Amino acid sequence: MSVIITGKDSLRKLRKLLVSKFKHSKVFVLTDNNTSKQCLPVFKKHIGVLPFTEIKIKSGEQNKTLATCEIIWKALLNKNADRNTLLINLGGGTVCDIGGFAASVYKRGIAFVNIPTTLLAMTDAAIGGKTGVDFLHFKNMIGSFTQPHATVIHREFLTTLPPRHLNSGKAEILKHALIADQSLWNLIEKDFNVTEEVLKKSITVKTKITEKDFKEANYRKLLNFGHTIGHAIESYYLQNELDILHGEAVAAGIFIESCLSFKNNKLSLNEIVAIGDCVFKHFPPPHVPSLKYLEKFLLADKKNVSGKVNFTFAEQNRRSFY
Amino acid sequence: MSVIITGKDSLRKLRKLLVSKFKHSKVFVLTDNNTSKQCLPVFKKHIGVLPFTEIKIKSGEQNKTLATCEIIWKALLNKNADRNTLLINLGGGTVCDIGGFAASVYKRGIAFVNIPTTLLAMTDAAIGGKTGVDFLHFKNMIGSFTQPHATVIHREFLTTLPPRHLNSGKAEILKHALIADQSLWNLIEKDFNVTEEVLKKSITVKTKITEKDFKEANYRKLLNFGHTIGHAIESYYLQNELDILHGEAVAAGIFIESCLSFKNNKLSLNEIVAIGDCVFKHFPPPHVPSLKYLEKFLLADKKNVSGKVNFTFAEQNRRSFY
Repeated sequence: MSVIITGKDSLRKLRKLLVSKFKHSKVFVLTDNNTSKQCLPVFKKHIGVLPFTEIKIKSGEQNKTLATCEIIWKALLNKNADRNTLLINLGGGTVCDIGGFAASVYKRGIAFVNIPTTLLAMTDAAIGGKTGVDFLHFKNMIGSFTQPHATVIHREFLTTLPPRHLNSGKAEILKHALIADQSLWNLIEKDFNVTEEVLKKSITVKTKITEKDFKEANYRKLLNFGHTIGHAIESYYLQNELDILHGEAVAAGIFIESCLSFKNNKLSLNEIVAIGDCVFKHFPPPHVPSLKYLEKFLLADKKNVSGKVNFTFAEQNRRSFY
Repeated sequence: MSVIITGKDSLRKLRKLLVSKFKHSKVFVLTDNNTSKQCLPVFKKHIGVLPFTEIKIKSGEQNKTLATCEIIWKALLNKNADRNTLLINLGGGTVCDIGGFAASVYKRGIAFVNIPTTLLAMTDAAIGGKTGVDFLHFKNMIGSFTQPHATVIHREFLTTLPPRHLNSGKAEILKHALIADQSLWNLIEKDFNVTEEVLKKSITVKTKITEKDFKEANYRKLLNFGHTIGHAIESYYLQNELDILHGEAVAAGIFIESCLSFKNNKLSLNEIVAIGDCVFKHFPPPHVPSLKYLEKFLLADKKNVSGKVNFTFAEQNRRSFY
């Protein structure tokens, strides 16, 4: 079972687990250029003298590739990391996704722990057991469904984030509100601050849905709201070496897919206006390329069946999921 | 659940499953240079007009790499293969291992069927759900535990094998006999022919053990008998670009690990003599490099814990596993 550890002393709780329960033969900590500088010292402070080896990779989605996985596997092999090894992913969505995937297939699977350091990763990427790397500019094309041993939410890390990255993370919170939690939507519609309450509610939506449907047979598809268009936009930007953050693409995706939901009578006009208001207030309006350019990315979407693009609608009357 | 289809009409039974039960959006058949020529026509004859796309890779263990996986993933992506796609692996251990791995992580996992065409693959690689590729000359270093939807045993394919390859496959049958089935050992000790009975008994040992312990927590370790040394020999050969077949390395491993079993009072002197007799009669004596050269490969063995090499002993009184 995967545990989620929250609260001010979450890293100390992890230390206890590591020492008393997990008992791994070796511990590795995966960082990137940013988290190695800004988060590893905090991690060390809380974790104490526990020995570990750092594996540092380059930051950025453009490095979420098989080539980076090979760097991780080489580092593990060089230290004779056996099947009883633990990999701790200390970073944002990219580090958690790639570290989770690398761990899930190294020697057919070693344990890993996610310590998300961005808002996006705390509310989304680090929870739910989806791992993966991009392939030929297609997002998360190679990956696995593998739960981390534990996910540690340490809110202090949010202070290390540039405002643009913190903001980008809000897109997943907005998504969680719109698909499953009216009370969360009520909270953020008024005042979109990442309070402890907002963070916990958002994590709960993700956890409840993924527990109910781990391998995306039904309920989990809800979480794709905003992501069919969002991923296509992101892939387009990635391929053209343009700058966009995942949350920024998803926010645009949420608005466009809300319009589709409205057209299909799943959302009222009032709701569309409120959602549009929230999206345009909190996220930069990205250049959304015409559907013609997005088509090939939409056709490669993992959720497609028999060549048909699948959209998830946000339904107003479904917002009491749990 | 994974099914094993045997008997003369096994391929026709697969056809029925494909048409009536599996209902995949697209079917791909993975072959290599050899099976594309020698086995695909037989497959087509039995499978009829069912449409599929062939993906052909280069034959040989030296191509069991991530680079070959990338070729497979590209081919799948080029045809917009979705999550409801089926990959049929038509080939020996290499094709089944690599195809199984490629399928298990493509879009986080699509279904696959193994049709082993070598004796080695029929009795071992294609059964039990271990998939993988070699990495930096280490065997199966990257992989997953994923069961095929079905495994189809079509004995006719054995007639396409060069005698050396047929012979190599006998090593896994010998292993199955020594670890779990006295009646199988009695049969092959007298006359080592791959009869229907011998083949079925051997497959049953593998199936029963892997059903009992899918992720190698305990019982499955039995199947590693002969393979700790065997894999090290194979890795050494691979790295030095020397020619050896998996079964030939494993046969040598079986003999050496039988000696270790004898030293640890798990096998009698009589048994060691009989096993040695069988190994030297049926397998070419390989050049076994000194332990000094094998050490680094032994240290990278996936079964090691905390830097200690783990051997599995063959115990005479354990040969009634099921």
